Amino acid sequence: MSDARVRIGMLGAGFIGQMHSLAMRSARYTRLQPAIEADLVVLAEADAGLAREVAHRYQWRHTTTDWGVLPTHELDLFINAGPNHLHRAACEAAAQAGIGLFCEKPLAPTADEAYDIWRITVRHGVLHRCAYMHRFIPAIQFMRRLVREGELGEITNFRSSFLLDMSTDGATSWRFDRAKAGAGAIGDLGSHHIDVARFVVGEVVRVSAMVASRHEGANDDAAVVTAQLDNGALAVFDVNRVSPAHDLSGRIEIDGTRGSVAWHMQRLNEVVIRKPRQGARTEFVTRPEHPLEGFWLPGGIQGSHPLGWNECFAHQSRDILGLAAGQLTESPAATFEDGYRVAQVVDTVLEAANTGRSIAVDYRPS
Amino acid sequence: MSDARVRIGMLGAGFIGQMHSLAMRSARYTRLQPAIEADLVVLAEADAGLAREVAHRYQWRHTTTDWGVLPTHELDLFINAGPNHLHRAACEAAAQAGIGLFCEKPLAPTADEAYDIWRITVRHGVLHRCAYMHRFIPAIQFMRRLVREGELGEITNFRSSFLLDMSTDGATSWRFDRAKAGAGAIGDLGSHHIDVARFVVGEVVRVSAMVASRHEGANDDAAVVTAQLDNGALAVFDVNRVSPAHDLSGRIEIDGTRGSVAWHMQRLNEVVIRKPRQGARTEFVTRPEHPLEGFWLPGGIQGSHPLGWNECFAHQSRDILGLAAGQLTESPAATFEDGYRVAQVVDTVLEAANTGRSIAVDYRPS
Amino acid sequence: MSDARVRIGMLGAGFIGQMHSLAMRSARYTRLQPAIEADLVVLAEADAGLAREVAHRYQWRHTTTDWGVLPTHELDLFINAGPNHLHRAACEAAAQAGIGLFCEKPLAPTADEAYDIWRITVRHGVLHRCAYMHRFIPAIQFMRRLVREGELGEITNFRSSFLLDMSTDGATSWRFDRAKAGAGAIGDLGSHHIDVARFVVGEVVRVSAMVASRHEGANDDAAVVTAQLDNGALAVFDVNRVSPAHDLSGRIEIDGTRGSVAWHMQRLNEVVIRKPRQGARTEFVTRPEHPLEGFWLPGGIQGSHPLGWNECFAHQSRDILGLAAGQLTESPAATFEDGYRVAQVVDTVLEAANTGRSIAVDYRPS
Amino acid sequence: MSDARVRIGMLGAGFIGQMHSLAMRSARYTRLQPAIEADLVVLAEADAGLAREVAHRYQWRHTTTDWGVLPTHELDLFINAGPNHLHRAACEAAAQAGIGLFCEKPLAPTADEAYDIWRITVRHGVLHRCAYMHRFIPAIQFMRRLVREGELGEITNFRSSFLLDMSTDGATSWRFDRAKAGAGAIGDLGSHHIDVARFVVGEVVRVSAMVASRHEGANDDAAVVTAQLDNGALAVFDVNRVSPAHDLSGRIEIDGTRGSVAWHMQRLNEVVIRKPRQGARTEFVTRPEHPLEGFWLPGGIQGSHPLGWNECFAHQSRDILGLAAGQLTESPAATFEDGYRVAQVVDTVLEAANTGRSIAVDYRPS
Repeated sequence: MSDARVRIGMLGAGFIGQMHSLAMRSARYTRLQPAIEADLVVLAEADAGLAREVAHRYQWRHTTTDWGVLPTHELDLFINAGPNHLHRAACEAAAQAGIGLFCEKPLAPTADEAYDIWRITVRHGVLHRCAYMHRFIPAIQFMRRLVREGELGEITNFRSSFLLDMSTDGATSWRFDRAKAGAGAIGDLGSHHIDVARFVVGEVVRVSAMVASRHEGANDDAAVVTAQLDNGALAVFDVNRVSPAHDLSGRIEIDGTRGSVAWHMQRLNEVVIRKPRQGARTEFVTRPEHPLEGFWLPGGIQGSHPLGWNECFAHQSRDILGLAAGQLTESPAATFEDGYRVAQVVDTVLEAANTGRSIAVDYRPS
Repeated sequence: MSDARVRIGMLGAGFIGQMHSLAMRSARYTRLQPAIEADLVVLAEADAGLAREVAHRYQWRHTTTDWGVLPTHELDLFINAGPNHLHRAACEAAAQAGIGLFCEKPLAPTADEAYDIWRITVRHGVLHRCAYMHRFIPAIQFMRRLVREGELGEITNFRSSFLLDMSTDGATSWRFDRAKAGAGAIGDLGSHHIDVARFVVGEVVRVSAMVASRHEGANDDAAVVTAQLDNGALAVFDVNRVSPAHDLSGRIEIDGTRGSVAWHMQRLNEVVIRKPRQGARTEFVTRPEHPLEGFWLPGGIQGSHPLGWNECFAHQSRDILGLAAGQLTESPAATFEDGYRVAQVVDTVLEAANTGRSIAVDYRPS
Repeated sequence: MSDARVRIGMLGAGFIGQMHSLAMRSARYTRLQPAIEADLVVLAEADAGLAREVAHRYQWRHTTTDWGVLPTHELDLFINAGPNHLHRAACEAAAQAGIGLFCEKPLAPTADEAYDIWRITVRHGVLHRCAYMHRFIPAIQFMRRLVREGELGEITNFRSSFLLDMSTDGATSWRFDRAKAGAGAIGDLGSHHIDVARFVVGEVVRVSAMVASRHEGANDDAAVVTAQLDNGALAVFDVNRVSPAHDLSGRIEIDGTRGSVAWHMQRLNEVVIRKPRQGARTEFVTRPEHPLEGFWLPGGIQGSHPLGWNECFAHQSRDILGLAAGQLTESPAATFEDGYRVAQVVDTVLEAANTGRSIAVDYRPS
Repeated sequence: MSDARVRIGMLGAGFIGQMHSLAMRSARYTRLQPAIEADLVVLAEADAGLAREVAHRYQWRHTTTDWGVLPTHELDLFINAGPNHLHRAACEAAAQAGIGLFCEKPLAPTADEAYDIWRITVRHGVLHRCAYMHRFIPAIQFMRRLVREGELGEITNFRSSFLLDMSTDGATSWRFDRAKAGAGAIGDLGSHHIDVARFVVGEVVRVSAMVASRHEGANDDAAVVTAQLDNGALAVFDVNRVSPAHDLSGRIEIDGTRGSVAWHMQRLNEVVIRKPRQGARTEFVTRPEHPLEGFWLPGGIQGSHPLGWNECFAHQSRDILGLAAGQLTESPAATFEDGYRVAQVVDTVLEAANTGRSIAVDYRPS
């Protein structure tokens, strides 16, 4: 295959838009072949000054304050890095223009809206991927491999907590507004871990939940959720976005009848593997036999150096570039169907919390 | 106060009865004053050979295979270390004889039976304590102090998991038999953490749960429980007794608006304290300012040496001896009321799991 | 073998004397057969009030302020828990009376004096053991087993640091006085790790060192030592007794051509085992297959509970009791020959530091 | 300041040359202003196929197999990523052409050669920096800040170990050849930690050492070094390059009279801070107040994500670009004087090991 170029438009120059810009630039310099260049054509952002600053830093060719004009450019890919309530309209416009879609998570404020986005995209036959980027962390892929290969036996438990502190910018953010964001902590943080459970173990079939909110009129600040996965495993999702003692604490542990594996977001490159009567083994997922090894540099001693978050983000970017360039057909990236299904779980969690009942997740058909 | 002697009878010479014997012997040699001698008068155990062996090792004066004769001895204290379904009858017999009671946990197979034991004891006016021994681990007492003194702010989350592997002796044990043991993992393991939540944070007011069992006809092997505590905090109890990758993994984390503290049973003497923007601080709870320091040896450099599980058990024994000798009136030890209330939570968890509903815990009055 | 009783006299009721008293009492209640009772006959201590207090707590039958009278009692064992400069005279008096010897470490302030003590003891044909108690920590015995069984291949490196803070009671202690204590940090702390290197890997054959002292006129506060062991391995001993940030930090790591094992004193029951390309595995040395398991209670799930420092001390006491009662002939306990050889290494370290030369350790013959 | 462009030639397309290429590309996309573009003009590499592959991946404009032609290009900066014995000639040629120099570490196989390179560079008045990249790890800069601001009191100890496994490609590599590489483990690994000691604490004034080699005729495979720093602190450098159990274990611990800080290479973003009676606090060096924060993305919750090794390498690249573009005058990067002084320490270590003497490091004047 020869080198390729993917023409990109993006909505949103805030934190996450900057992260995508950086990652798209970095992804050019992977050792994977062929090289795929992200051609950053046009950046749409309501704040014109921010747009100029970000465009200058990452060499976007054009900026606009009106995302509606994006489809008028010749683009291969649209990155939707705007707030949740803008996902649908901008995705639909791009899909109508035949542009491939890469949309931030959660896919939409509600499961219904997420379902619509998914179906629209399928109708227009364009590429659709949702940025559940945990799938591009080597440790997560390695956990999935362990599960798939039966290393842990039959999976009995998935437990996770995702704790951080948004309270400083808190109540003023669109993230706290039910209309704009949809769910709160369970939608913003929990959705990542729900997707990991699905990616690594299996679909969520039933949930029960309690939620709490410390901010008057805001969506949920904290939730504790129990769930059943499709293989019968029990799961716990414990999320809190106003947890000031926790910087950025995302923990996942998966237990099976023959072993267990755990991961902590702040120790991005490590998994802790437990086997019966063997204690806990910390494995640095940076060696030649590990997923995504050799992506950046040749393996070996120095290839064992730790990776960072931005690099994992760039793993995702390279995957999306490969799909958009037609050079990949398979990919670990979440589709809009995955995005919809996670949203359906989140909505069911809120209903379970409201009703005090355990509820089966009722997925809509494709 | 002068040295004292407490005359003791015990039912059960199995593992836990041996542990009590050892701890009662050790507790004689604390630096706390006065010295209280455990006079191990009579040991009741159905297996006569085991009784003799254990009596010889720990210098019990008499053995019997019939626990019914215990009240005929002159005793100050009865230790009930028999299986759960024998707690009630033996406790009642001792209470009638005016003997103080120290009973293993859970107090009974069901909340109703636990309630009866409690009320009988109160009616006879005898000492009653239930062996939720986590309360005598210095780290747990230190966590409680942090919470009480407001170091963590308002508590928002209690999360715990208790995972181990009973599968080797599994299905043959009385612990797997609903009639003899009552609940399974949630009663045997979960009850410890439920009591810690109550001891350190506050009462459990509402629960929701899912359970699983891998053994046909047995009680629950695993449970995932969400709960609300009386201050509004959300709690998670995650227990599994057939989790072969986990040797003895009991973890507790308590989050508040100003800090967090975590503890892991295998690292008995450590707590991990998190404060906003300060990372995670591991404190060894073995210094002069810590609970129970100086119990065994003078503090200082070498007083900072780690304590073991048996020593924590002996902390409990010394407390019970002090109560039985009339030299202590206050104590951190769980009463039979605590024992009943934990049992009520456990029964409500099972009902919540069976009905798929969130249920308020309905405690019976004293 | 039938139960036994060992009649004991001890010099010193300070911290370490209290620790021996406690451990001797605890050692009675091991599951090892036969039961051996420590008969605590007479305690010699210059401070009569302290002697009475300690005697009352641990049930010593007699006290004296004159250690010279100890040999007039009928004793099987003399525990020398006095300061280093009193080791020789009291040991000699006991040996002359045919009493077995168990002496605190270091054996003497100088290698010459240690040699004399050893030779005197041998001449009188009495039991001689030196309290290098690290040998009775299950994790240390487990490390030794790994080395002996070739699990780590050929040993290439031994590295250790022993850091704590004696600065509060510092300069006033006899430990800081060269005449009374001999060497400072390298004698008090370093000697433990030197003995562990010898016990686990092999004899020390050559040393090089730098030392520092923060206290005018005192012996060494800190030392950094490189050494060669008899198999060619390189070793590092890094000690500092005025290191206020370190509570009680004793770390040992042993590397070989096929693996590595590490241990940290504050995590007494854990070793970290590294094998090529397998990461670092934390093993809790509390399972049935581990050294000293079952000493206190039957193995199994609850036998996996962590042990404490006092319990390891009691492991040592039981061993010494067994030797004194004539029921053990082999033992991991250090002999006075070991005590002398460690002292010879310590003296050579000081000479190496003084001369700026690497020096071969010149052991005197038996 | 306006955006700038730095024209670069490089010798060496092996692992380290690829790493520089990647880092120079990444450094373009920092948030630091102005943007500085690395113009990768010409890559010299003896293996023409490798040169083409690397040039294609990182968009070098020209390749050559003859490094002698580099100075014929219009260049601002020469990166010397060739083997140690080629550092001098290529650096001299570039310096003569007035090109700034950025040379891999160690600066040369011997201290004499390193001294010559430094003096040549100074004579020609060109930029000179040596790639001791640890200086660009935020955690290392943070440790330095703690020391400088007196947070740890007076520094008493620096201890480090650097252990990894080069045995697979071992004996065939130029790194094992004394003529080409100079020292072995102490030059290749130890030099990093010697430079960190100098950067964070102070100059090395005296050393003592033992070395070992497992490969016939090769330079040192392992060394254990004790040292004194200019403030009187004791230091240990413990290095082993054939240590198969250790993937990439670089550990540094610095103790002072008021605190201690430790760092482990595999946990790149963490330091462990100990203060008296406060236990050990793990701080993730990724928050707004930390060094180099905001380099890549705006701070805040998500700015707290972990960084990787490549990103730290790019921190260094941006610094070198800033210096070469004349936009920075101060910099944490090591100069060739630093490179020489480290080489002098390394040579003194080898002499100390050979002679069995402690030797003062005799630095040559500028």
